[in-house]
Amino acid sequence: MSAQQFDFGMIGLGVMGRNFLLNMADHGFKVIGFDKDNQKTSALESDATAGTTVKGVGSLQDMISLLAVPRKIMMLVPAGKPVDDVIESLLPLVQKGDIIIDGGNSHYTDTLRRVTYLQQKGIHFMGIGVSGGEQGARTGPSIMPGGDPEAYPHVRPMLEAVAAKVDSVPCVAHLGKGAAGHYVKMVHNGIEYAIMQLISECYDLLHRGLGLSNDELHTVFDTWNKGDLRSFLIEITADIFLQPDDKTPNRLVDMILDKAGAKGTGKWTSQDAMDLGVPIPTIDMAVTMRNLSALKSERVQASALYPETSSLIGVPKQQFIQQVHDALLFATIISYAQGLAQLHKAGTDLDMQIPMPKVVSVWRGGCIIRSALLPVFGNAFEANPELSNLLLDTQVAKILQNNSAGLRAVAAMAIQHSIPAAALLSALSYFDTYRSKQLPINLLQAQRDYFGAHTYQRIDQEGTFHTAWGKK
Amino acid sequence: MSAQQFDFGMIGLGVMGRNFLLNMADHGFKVIGFDKDNQKTSALESDATAGTTVKGVGSLQDMISLLAVPRKIMMLVPAGKPVDDVIESLLPLVQKGDIIIDGGNSHYTDTLRRVTYLQQKGIHFMGIGVSGGEQGARTGPSIMPGGDPEAYPHVRPMLEAVAAKVDSVPCVAHLGKGAAGHYVKMVHNGIEYAIMQLISECYDLLHRGLGLSNDELHTVFDTWNKGDLRSFLIEITADIFLQPDDKTPNRLVDMILDKAGAKGTGKWTSQDAMDLGVPIPTIDMAVTMRNLSALKSERVQASALYPETSSLIGVPKQQFIQQVHDALLFATIISYAQGLAQLHKAGTDLDMQIPMPKVVSVWRGGCIIRSALLPVFGNAFEANPELSNLLLDTQVAKILQNNSAGLRAVAAMAIQHSIPAAALLSALSYFDTYRSKQLPINLLQAQRDYFGAHTYQRIDQEGTFHTAWGKK
Repeated sequence: MSAQQFDFGMIGLGVMGRNFLLNMADHGFKVIGFDKDNQKTSALESDATAGTTVKGVGSLQDMISLLAVPRKIMMLVPAGKPVDDVIESLLPLVQKGDIIIDGGNSHYTDTLRRVTYLQQKGIHFMGIGVSGGEQGARTGPSIMPGGDPEAYPHVRPMLEAVAAKVDSVPCVAHLGKGAAGHYVKMVHNGIEYAIMQLISECYDLLHRGLGLSNDELHTVFDTWNKGDLRSFLIEITADIFLQPDDKTPNRLVDMILDKAGAKGTGKWTSQDAMDLGVPIPTIDMAVTMRNLSALKSERVQASALYPETSSLIGVPKQQFIQQVHDALLFATIISYAQGLAQLHKAGTDLDMQIPMPKVVSVWRGGCIIRSALLPVFGNAFEANPELSNLLLDTQVAKILQNNSAGLRAVAAMAIQHSIPAAALLSALSYFDTYRSKQLPINLLQAQRDYFGAHTYQRIDQEGTFHTAWGKK
Repeated sequence: MSAQQFDFGMIGLGVMGRNFLLNMADHGFKVIGFDKDNQKTSALESDATAGTTVKGVGSLQDMISLLAVPRKIMMLVPAGKPVDDVIESLLPLVQKGDIIIDGGNSHYTDTLRRVTYLQQKGIHFMGIGVSGGEQGARTGPSIMPGGDPEAYPHVRPMLEAVAAKVDSVPCVAHLGKGAAGHYVKMVHNGIEYAIMQLISECYDLLHRGLGLSNDELHTVFDTWNKGDLRSFLIEITADIFLQPDDKTPNRLVDMILDKAGAKGTGKWTSQDAMDLGVPIPTIDMAVTMRNLSALKSERVQASALYPETSSLIGVPKQQFIQQVHDALLFATIISYAQGLAQLHKAGTDLDMQIPMPKVVSVWRGGCIIRSALLPVFGNAFEANPELSNLLLDTQVAKILQNNSAGLRAVAAMAIQHSIPAAALLSALSYFDTYRSKQLPINLLQAQRDYFGAHTYQRIDQEGTFHTAWGKK
């Protein structure tokens, strides 16, 4: 048997797996990758930086025999059955104390099941969320590990080495028990859905509503990316408007079909929030709007039945652009607030013990939702790690108050001009509802008791009550 | 053994079960009810109309031995494990060809599992949705049966006898295969959630916004109930404003705490719609707003941090009331459209073969969402049973177009006065998105391809494409 000299093994050498491993090798770790596909194992070795120790193998036995114990084995394979298949093929080969890591977008309930299953066999299982796309995996992703706290110290040096750095602090931390890593990554993606939908709506308002050209749109987003909206998604949006099409003389963005795809993590975020009873309407709306966009042929039919008005928005350009900026900033903060409130609740209700300040710190760099807002949120959670909602932080409150007029103006204009702004409006609704001491839900409770005897609570007495309504 | 003379058996003699059975007895059927609780079996017999054949028993064996074959046995017990328990206790007693009915709010996936399980044993299992509350069960509910078409003719006479009648047509029909009955009832409840939320928002606009008193509110809703908004929910809302409190000199509605309860069927509707990829944002929002209302203590905190403006809406009273009427009518139609689109998709994707014209017909009477709008929808589905969305019907389009200005005016006013109108706004967003031939989702697809290589489609060529974005 060869010397057990390798520090880290990767199963699945797609672009993400390969890049993650090469990144680790660049930081001095000896890494080994397995894939059934010979071309991928060769590509791994040929792409390695000179002087690094990178090996590709086509047999799991070979990988296992070459890894130092406790073995650190990560897989980046499609979620679902492939993850279980990899676990089953590893089980006869690994030994007690070894660490198996799932770096894909698995649903957290699957991860919980696997943690328990492998715990019984003395194997540590960690679900780790990785965000940053292909490029991020190579140069520094945001890494969201969860699971057994005993296992984390063994993988911590490697993960801290490969992670993105912000002010020299690596964007990785142990984010809680059980499936916490995958849960945090799921909600990260939910927030990502919301912000992408919000940016698209702002694009629509500026393009369909104000008539801005792609060059003007580039300038707007490029300028925003130098201010308080600075973020990865605003940055790539500015880029996108300049991208030429290689098949026509147009800009590529104008040649792309307006039907959204989705991989499911946004949907899971909404579905799980409903199970927890946490309201995240802007994320829900982003999920729903992707589904609505997919009904292209129905939309074309409906547009004939309900002709759109085509008048441009009459507000002076620079004034409206500033209002849209304010609206986007406001609604983006609301999206984070919803997702973080969900994590706060999940940490308790699902017993994941999610450290909120660390979540926000890990998201500062490398991931798709990194933004200049994260340090503001970091301050809020450092001041109060048990903060149930960002909106209750006074600094966040100031920013929201400074930008609410812009959102109200934009919302009114969108409504008047029939330009859909579903996510922007949902953010405003969330805000106006959340800060309403008194809601009209007393009437809804009366209705429920009237027809279904579901009972109600009173404002002046404890207990539950039922009334024989309408019996005069 | 006694003569097998009884037509129908009921397991679970809570208010719903008892009333349903007494209703059936009133129509000449011989009925028998089982409950472990002696008081409930006695109450069943003592509440029976003179001259009807109603028997209460405390043993399942007794019930089984007294029922004519094939036996028709319905249970009205809490969803979940109690349903499985009843099935297991019945299995040793029933024989092939017998029919077991679950009349509760079971999740449709549970029902599907039970249908398959009992099919293997030669027993018919039907999931039946029943709507109408306690009163409806006694005098005529809306009944939504699904499951084996072979079994339906055996229960049809009883169900048609007890169901609500509209124009002498009973509000019951076989609504599809497998778990179709429970699926239709689930979506019925989702629509119910949406309409109740919409009514509450209109109440808020008229009360908080316009300053109307409970007496004025009664008059408004009572008037609306005589026009195109005529419906059960508007009718009871008008009633509610008059209900005195028996503990204080106030109206009861003002003494009810504004925290909503929920039993889960609305949540299921939203979660399943996301699985099907059907957008139902107004139902989602209603679910989410119930959850938001429950955060009362956070809302009180937030109201101090973000003080509300208190100025009344300045539009002349009668004009604003008319606009709110139009907004409510518009958004109510949108809510039905979303739910019915979900049923249309479920009928195909889940192979339930749901007959849409019959669904709309069954909802005309007895159920919580019965309304003067159902005949309009009935015409739409009679004209085109495969209609994918009500919005594509020309008669529905006319009503929406006549009322859209009112909704836009109300939405703008709500935004300006910081009165939350989440469901109303979501309905408008849905409409404006659905009738947009071109959405800004081309940008979102560009973003997804930029950071995640998720590929995109083009407007001018078939296929999927990927671009190395930003490489200039």
